[in-house]
Amino acid sequence: MPETKMIIDCDTGVDDALAITYILADPKIQLLGVTTTYGNIDVDSSIRNSLSILELFHQKDIGVYRGADHAYGKDSYVRGNKSPLVHGHNGIGDVDLGTPENKEEEKSAVDFIIESARRYKEELHLVFVGPLTNLADCIRKDVEALKLVGNITIMGGALTLQGNKSVYAEANIGSDPLAAKEVFASPLHLSIIPLDATLKTLFKVSDIAHFKDLNKAGKDIYDIAHFYYVHELGGEDVGGAMHDPLAAYASIDPSVITNWFPCNLTAEENGRTIGTFQELNLEEKRHRVALDVDAKRFTKEYIRLVTDLIQRS
Amino acid sequence: MPETKMIIDCDTGVDDALAITYILADPKIQLLGVTTTYGNIDVDSSIRNSLSILELFHQKDIGVYRGADHAYGKDSYVRGNKSPLVHGHNGIGDVDLGTPENKEEEKSAVDFIIESARRYKEELHLVFVGPLTNLADCIRKDVEALKLVGNITIMGGALTLQGNKSVYAEANIGSDPLAAKEVFASPLHLSIIPLDATLKTLFKVSDIAHFKDLNKAGKDIYDIAHFYYVHELGGEDVGGAMHDPLAAYASIDPSVITNWFPCNLTAEENGRTIGTFQELNLEEKRHRVALDVDAKRFTKEYIRLVTDLIQRS
Repeated sequence: MPETKMIIDCDTGVDDALAITYILADPKIQLLGVTTTYGNIDVDSSIRNSLSILELFHQKDIGVYRGADHAYGKDSYVRGNKSPLVHGHNGIGDVDLGTPENKEEEKSAVDFIIESARRYKEELHLVFVGPLTNLADCIRKDVEALKLVGNITIMGGALTLQGNKSVYAEANIGSDPLAAKEVFASPLHLSIIPLDATLKTLFKVSDIAHFKDLNKAGKDIYDIAHFYYVHELGGEDVGGAMHDPLAAYASIDPSVITNWFPCNLTAEENGRTIGTFQELNLEEKRHRVALDVDAKRFTKEYIRLVTDLIQRS
Repeated sequence: MPETKMIIDCDTGVDDALAITYILADPKIQLLGVTTTYGNIDVDSSIRNSLSILELFHQKDIGVYRGADHAYGKDSYVRGNKSPLVHGHNGIGDVDLGTPENKEEEKSAVDFIIESARRYKEELHLVFVGPLTNLADCIRKDVEALKLVGNITIMGGALTLQGNKSVYAEANIGSDPLAAKEVFASPLHLSIIPLDATLKTLFKVSDIAHFKDLNKAGKDIYDIAHFYYVHELGGEDVGGAMHDPLAAYASIDPSVITNWFPCNLTAEENGRTIGTFQELNLEEKRHRVALDVDAKRFTKEYIRLVTDLIQRS
């Protein structure tokens, strides 16, 4: 039996898809559901892509739940110019996985997260790899439920490094800085995986070239990842950062993070994540931020587990 | 015999004065000279204040050297509005130490630093606690000489924390971001003591209350520090940060910094110190940044050494 139950909150995107794939691959994890939001792509596409990835690995019993479709303080979602270049027009590298057979669940993302938190308590890990709107909504609705879970991990922010949405903002935090500010100010203890760590986990096409020869699922995952690895940072030689997979992995194996920095963060209006004077000398640090990572171990484990999953599919 | 020769580059300022005092107090250090710049106050006042502090402790053989009087890309120095409130109109808490008997040396700050570097090599530690104009000038003139010294420590920047000059900038880096950018891009290995560490070393008036009863030097240092501890962060209960003394102390006792973060920094035009994508994955990290400090040990050692110095004066 898996030790940990997990919900991943995604704006599914390529690296979100690669994170879902990892979660399905790790025998230590039971994936309870995928909750969705806007970000790399609109929420409808995020739902479709999440269903498609689950079905690629024959996981039709795992539900996909609809969450926020736009940020706090805005009326609607507008996709960023860079996103289609990095994730493809359809969000999964323009690979056509067909129309999923399953539909989204009727329950909302927020209700599913809160009910699961109250039911599974410390057995449950929550991983948020998109804008933090759904998490902020959960906090507004029932922060006490979230205090019960074993771990909450966020992929987001840039602490010692310039951002990737702007010089200040990482994309997830920059897409909804108001939600991020509420999340960081809440009493929740958070593990935060920012660009500082994820940009040290660059995968190249050659790292996963063997996927394509295993079977159809392997070929599809290869094609999806290929698009991203070639386009995210601007070339096959550079590779692409495994932002979201690292967050899911670190939730289960926190020692892969070789420098956890304890602090109390806020999010500024421009999306910068930064410590505040007011909370610097508090003894209690609510946040631990990943400043360095054992990228070799993560890479090896990711590829080993996902290769096994593909072979079983 | 002291193990380490030191030059401190100051914009003298209260905490600069308290750093000079510490250096004179530590038997492990021989202070070769004080080089000066603008920042907390104009360079002329910085020279006068440095001479006065040296004379307060009967150190008339230690020279004071004139450095830059304004920042790169500017025509002149204009004192910030906050500086008189924090450091007093005269830079040393409006305490009148009279007119110093000594005069500044004829040699320039830059020439003194470079000649000392070539003469003393790894025996020499350089500590920069003002804007980095003098250091950038040294790098432009003879970077090879600076590569010879045992340690270069800078008080400046804010990496995981908002700034104190603006939300982005710490005062020293923000006063000459162009110089800081050149310094950080140079091949020099630097130990950097930012607000992240120094704002954890808050001294209160009560910590040094015994100074005032020891003798005249003790009373003067008490009065200078008192002004700053009450005004820097807005109240006697909060205290004042020992920015510059910590930098000098950490140069000699680097293990007082309990979290050295290795990275490659740049300075942005707005004075923010931050890592760059381009240099994130370089194996060689030129900079180590103090993210946490054993404030208790620093406080205890500072007060022990300075109490001894005052008693001997």
